[in-house]
Order: sequence, then C-alpha cells, then structure tokens
Amino acid sequence: MNVELMQHTSLAVTAHAIRTCWQSFDNSDEGGEKDLALIDRVGNKFKHASTLEHLNYTFYLSGISRALLQELARHRMASLSVKSTRYTLKELKEEKDSFTNGMNMIELKEKYTDATEVYNDLHMKRASKYLVFTNILTVDFASVVALENLRLILQDAIANDMAKFCLPESYKTELTWTINARSLQNFISLRTSKSALWEIRDLANMIYDTLPKDHKYLFESCISQ
Amino acid sequence: MNVELMQHTSLAVTAHAIRTCWQSFDNSDEGGEKDLALIDRVGNKFKHASTLEHLNYTFYLSGISRALLQELARHRMASLSVKSTRYTLKELKEEKDSFTNGMNMIELKEKYTDATEVYNDLHMKRASKYLVFTNILTVDFASVVALENLRLILQDAIANDMAKFCLPESYKTELTWTINARSLQNFISLRTSKSALWEIRDLANMIYDTLPKDHKYLFESCISQ
Amino acid sequence: MNVELMQHTSLAVTAHAIRTCWQSFDNSDEGGEKDLALIDRVGNKFKHASTLEHLNYTFYLSGISRALLQELARHRMASLSVKSTRYTLKELKEEKDSFTNGMNMIELKEKYTDATEVYNDLHMKRASKYLVFTNILTVDFASVVALENLRLILQDAIANDMAKFCLPESYKTELTWTINARSLQNFISLRTSKSALWEIRDLANMIYDTLPKDHKYLFESCISQ
Amino acid sequence: MNVELMQHTSLAVTAHAIRTCWQSFDNSDEGGEKDLALIDRVGNKFKHASTLEHLNYTFYLSGISRALLQELARHRMASLSVKSTRYTLKELKEEKDSFTNGMNMIELKEKYTDATEVYNDLHMKRASKYLVFTNILTVDFASVVALENLRLILQDAIANDMAKFCLPESYKTELTWTINARSLQNFISLRTSKSALWEIRDLANMIYDTLPKDHKYLFESCISQ
Repeated sequence: MNVELMQHTSLAVTAHAIRTCWQSFDNSDEGGEKDLALIDRVGNKFKHASTLEHLNYTFYLSGISRALLQELARHRMASLSVKSTRYTLKELKEEKDSFTNGMNMIELKEKYTDATEVYNDLHMKRASKYLVFTNILTVDFASVVALENLRLILQDAIANDMAKFCLPESYKTELTWTINARSLQNFISLRTSKSALWEIRDLANMIYDTLPKDHKYLFESCISQ
Repeated sequence: MNVELMQHTSLAVTAHAIRTCWQSFDNSDEGGEKDLALIDRVGNKFKHASTLEHLNYTFYLSGISRALLQELARHRMASLSVKSTRYTLKELKEEKDSFTNGMNMIELKEKYTDATEVYNDLHMKRASKYLVFTNILTVDFASVVALENLRLILQDAIANDMAKFCLPESYKTELTWTINARSLQNFISLRTSKSALWEIRDLANMIYDTLPKDHKYLFESCISQ
Repeated sequence: MNVELMQHTSLAVTAHAIRTCWQSFDNSDEGGEKDLALIDRVGNKFKHASTLEHLNYTFYLSGISRALLQELARHRMASLSVKSTRYTLKELKEEKDSFTNGMNMIELKEKYTDATEVYNDLHMKRASKYLVFTNILTVDFASVVALENLRLILQDAIANDMAKFCLPESYKTELTWTINARSLQNFISLRTSKSALWEIRDLANMIYDTLPKDHKYLFESCISQ
Repeated sequence: MNVELMQHTSLAVTAHAIRTCWQSFDNSDEGGEKDLALIDRVGNKFKHASTLEHLNYTFYLSGISRALLQELARHRMASLSVKSTRYTLKELKEEKDSFTNGMNMIELKEKYTDATEVYNDLHMKRASKYLVFTNILTVDFASVVALENLRLILQDAIANDMAKFCLPESYKTELTWTINARSLQNFISLRTSKSALWEIRDLANMIYDTLPKDHKYLFESCISQ
C-alpha cells in the first residue's frame, strides 16, 4: 500500500474563508499560529464544519485491494478516479508464466514448511504485484489460485467483462482520490476504529501520516486509539 | 437478480412541489394527466431538475454480484444498506459439502461435455445460491473453485476479515437502495448504455421495469437503445 | 408560520434497510417496538447514520421570511422548491390600497400609542399577509414602509427582476422541502440551539412537533434545551 | 461586484486522475496540449464528469446582493462562507449621518432631475457601500430609504436578529466560495442564460472571465449566448 499526497489547499485559504464571516482579515497572521488556532476553534470546537470544506486534498492511493475499494467508495463526499478493471486485466493477460505451477490451494499449502519461504518464492513475489496478501497462508494461496485461473481465462481470449467476475477481492487497484477536510475527518474517525477492516485502518493511518505536518492538528482528535 | 420496489413517493408530491413555485395549486388534477405533463415539462424540458428530487424510490436489489456493487456504489446521490460480508461468510461456513469434489478449474472443464449439464449439476446449483454466473464456463468454474477454497478456509476458523480477501467478485450480495428521481435518471442514462457492464445494464433495465407504471414516462427517454 | 407534513417514509422501510446488513428480517415485528429500538441503536448509537437516509420527509413550510430562507438553503442535503419572487410580486402588484397612508417609519411610530393597536390596525393586518412581523414596532414599521414602496414601484410597471432588490427580508415565502432523517437530525440539532436565529428556532421546533408521533424518538435527543 | 480567484487546482491533477483509469501516465505532457485535450475528451465528450471534480476553485465574491445570495446558495455542490449579517449591521450602526436627509421615496424622486446627479450625490455614494444599485431610480431610492430606516433602528439599540428583518435584499454581502469544475460547469450553464437574474448572469460571466486562461476551454461551451 502506498499513499502519496498530490496536492492540497493551503490553510491560509480556510483561515480566509472563516475570516469572511466576521471580516476579521486584519487579525490574520498569514497562516501562522493565530490562523491555525482560529480554524480549529471555528471548524472543530464551534462545529462550523462547512468552513473546513474549502480545504481539499488529492491523494494517489495504490496497492490497495478491491475489498478496500468497496468500503472506500461508500464515502460519498469525495471524488474517485479508479484504475479500470479492463486495463488491469490487460496487464495480467501479458503474464506468460503460471503463478502456481498447476497446484491448487491444498497442494500449495502442503508444499511449504514456513511463511518466510512462501513470500520469498518467486511466483508469490510475481503474484504480489497483483494481490494484497493477508499473511494468512491459505487465504493468500486461494488468492493466487484465483489469479492463476484468471490468467488462464484471459489467455483463452475471454472478454474482460466476463472474466472479471472471478477476480478475487484481494486484487490490487489504485486511484486518485480528492476529499475535503470535513469529509476526511469523518473518514479518519470511522476508519481508524478497531472495528474497521484492518486494511482500511492501515490506509486511514497512512493517510494521516501523509498529511502536511501543519494540517495534522485538524485530524489528531479523529484518530481512534 | 431480483428487483423489488419497496416504497415510492406519489407523483402528486412532486406536482405539488412544482406548483409551489408559481402557486398554481388550483390547476392541479390531483396527480392526473395535467400534473404528469407539468412534471415532465418542468423537471425534464425546463431542466428544473431539483423538483424531481422530491420523488424517492426504495428498492430491494438481490442476487447481484459484488462486481456490480463496485459500480453501483459510485452513484453517490443514493443511500445503500448492504448485506454484510461478515454475515455472508457465516452462511457459507455452514455449508458442509464440497462444491467441486476436489476438482480444480481445468478438471471441471474436462469433466463436462455441455453447458446444460453444468448448470443442472447439483453442486453448481448449490453454488448458484452464492455466485452470479456469467454463462462462460471457465469463468464460472473459476468462481466455484474460489467459492470452495473460501468454504474450506472458513472451516479452518480463519477470521472473516482475512478470509474475505479471496472472495470472488461474482459473489452475490443484496441491498436496500434509496434514490431520488433525478439521480435515478442519471443512473438509467449511464447504465443502460451498451458500453456499461452487462450485469448493471440488466439491473438498470430491470429497475426501469419495476417502476410504477405511471412513473415510467419520466425515465423513458433515459433508456439507451 | 405553518408546517405541514405532506408525506413520509414508513419506519418499517428503515428497519428493513438495517436488517439487510445482517439479514435479520425474521426478527422484525413489522415496525413495532423491536424495529424501533433497532433503528435507534444502529442509526444513532452505533453511528451507522446512512441507514437513516432511507427515511424521507416532505414538508410544506409557509409564512416564513426570506431571512429564514437564507439560512434554510444552507442545509444542502435537502431539496427545496420555493415560491418564486416573480409570482410573489404579482400578488403584491394587485394590491390597490396603501399600507401606510403615505406615512414613513417615524410618522407611523408617532401615530400609535400601543402595540395591540398596531397589530389590529387594518393596514397592518393586510401587510401581515406579506410580512413576518418581529413584534419590535420600529422594525415592523420599516418593513411595512418597504412593502408600500415596493407596491408603488410595481404599480409603475418596473420589471420584477429590478423591483425585487428593495424587497425586505421579512417578506413571506413558502416552499416544499424534502429532507432525510439523517440531515433532519443535523438541522434540528443546529437550529433549536439558543444561538440560532429566533425564527428558524421556531421553525425547527415546529417541524419536530409535526413529525409523526412514532418518529419523534429519533430526533428527541437532537433538541437543544 | 468583484470576483477574485484565490486558489485553484492545477490541470495536471485532473489529467493525472484521468490517466489513473487507463494507467496512461507515460502519455502525459505535464499539463500540456495532450493533457488538456484528454481532459476535454473524457470529462466533457465522454461524460465521465466525475474526473472534473478533482479541479477545485476558491473565489472571493464581493459587492453582491443578498438577492443574488438567495440564488447562489441553491447550488448545493459548493462550499460557502458568508459575511455574517450580525457583523454587517455593526458596520451600519457606526454610520452617524442620514442617507436620505429625512426624505421618503417619493420626495427623493421629486428632488432629482437626472440619474447622473443621483449617483454622484454624496449620500447615494455613501449608501452604495451597503447597497447594490439597479439603476432604476425608484428601486434604488426605496433601498436607500430601507437602509436609512435600518440605520435608525440600530441607533435605537434594537438587537441585530430583529433589525435584520427589514434589511432590503439589495444589501451587499461577500463570501468565500469553493466549487469544483463539474459543479461550476452546471452553474455557468444555468446562470449565463438570458432567463437568469441579471445580477447572477453578471456574476457567472465575471467568474468565467476570472478563471485561469488555460482552464477556460472547459467552460466555454457552457456559456449561454
């Protein structure tokens, strides 16, 4: 999983938006400590949350599973441009070698004596380009078998719109994601929770880590301990 | 796939909303022909599309794949309550018999001589409770193998949040879906198109068919030929 | 001010939506006590707020000022169809008699000795068809003078799109308003607060009072004391 | 009326978002002609409009009337932080001199022989700090009388939440407004139309003029002739 912050609005813009209401532009310190305290006070403490909508972040998220995408897409106050499955399958179609040497899940399980060996295996390394691994061996073997079956189907020239139905949800995807600070607060609150899916919890924490240092204070209290 | 209309707003409500603007309540024929013509004229022809937002539909959609759900969830002007994967897996866990008799995709392919035989096979019938079939044999065999692997993993007491990563996207889900007429017009326009995924095209057409007879005229021109 | 509930979704629909997630339809008591407790638990306590979006309410709000409309329109998760100003002005244009007998605000103030007399005055009664009164005499006189000036301007055949610029914000309007339960909770929370404008506070309380008796428990804790 | 573009996202971000779908990053010319043609083709011609949501613009709009604000606030896919009426009234309260010399609308109308004289009058110039003028003399006189009445009421220490009800809709306000390119296309399409209110038509055209030169091609076809 990788998170890259591609662009973000300056805090000075939100400070200016807030100062619009009371025309207190003269009190601004141009995005300095006074402005930062103002944003926190109005946007968070006074619950005038719409002022936080002027702050937009665009992230490039990659190496996430389509299982995670199912959950990410439910955050409707955000914009997603996602790698197309059709294109994804084109890449896989070009793979000429088997990922499993013809073994099924049970046979793969019997072959290996320990986990380190599994993830160092050349075929598993090749598969990890396409799959998010859970580090639960049988689950990952099931994913690899599904990947291999899909590869074979694509070699048979089956149309992508049919082939994609046997895609495992561990399949990797990537997207450009734009979200404003108000909606991101909601995302971080819900998704850093212990009851969230482990992968989206990892993502939510990584997104927080990727935020500009001076923006973090707006999201700190959203992080679930 | 099954579509059930659970509730909808009466056209009279939208007619009333439109008549608010010009206070023309006296011209109403209580949801009759004059009111219907008014809704079409203002909502569609005059592009005062917000008046169509007063019309809400709640559908129960079942037997759709998680591949389709990926696309459905991108329609952000709608409300979704979806069958939980955790619960889904609980059902599968209770299946005690194999779906494949230990065969892999290649072996399944070799076993059968024709398609009718395949879909009449007891194990395939049992699997169809969980999977959307594409009627492309190898794709469906790959889905059944993935289903069987997942069943075995669940028997091993692997946590659902790990096991779900090898779920195939053909896995069936169901949801309660509420959408207003404006957003539904957009959905039907985009998703009855020939370039849409076949399953969501089927869904869009079936949703149109399920609409109350007197509401259909609002969506007719959205259907892609 | 008047609030009429024109239509609403049944609680059974939301209960069904929630039961979708865990497929617990068998536990339903068809919108009875068990279902109501479920909605409160999931929608409110578990913060699965999107389940409350299946509940839609359509209200007809009348006798509210355009000052209030300015605030109401900021609640973006709702649909508004508002009485047109152009139509509004057509009504006023048809008034042939003065509302002020040619007096200005100061003169009106000097004429009356007590408030009861003012609001029983025939001209003030006629004006109250068009204006929301604050019961602060000078403010209401200023509104009536503005109303009279506007009436004279309209008699002069000035175009509505010019004339409307001197409309006082106390001018009455009405609208059809559709909002879901999640957004209505937010509205009631923010607008019953003591720091809200008195007129929108009255409206928020009146909306709560107009809710179906069995729906009120979902909003009770939102009311600011 | 004044429009200032405070910040905007680079076109390269949207080009990148679009290239996510087909992973065609190598074809990018870093926001050059190829990228621009791509955005137009996908966002406009192919109607993949969500890709335009990554482009955000923040404007500072000032010298607009509250009549215009009524319409602007109906564009719900945007974020508004508006100058507070309470603050607005504080400014007016500090005005110690009359705007009308005690004259009413009729008397003002009789006093002046021509329009140039009116708008060069010192009191009208002072009033123009607070009011949007229509250049229809009687309408503007009515606004000035309303302004003067409001000024007198504020001198009487009436609470702002009561006094604001006699505010004329010509009263000036200002706001920080953030909107994405998809929603802005909709705004420009609807509001440059001949059937739109003259002031919002002026605003829509001015907003278009204020856009970065290389962004204009995305909105050109939205402008109503």
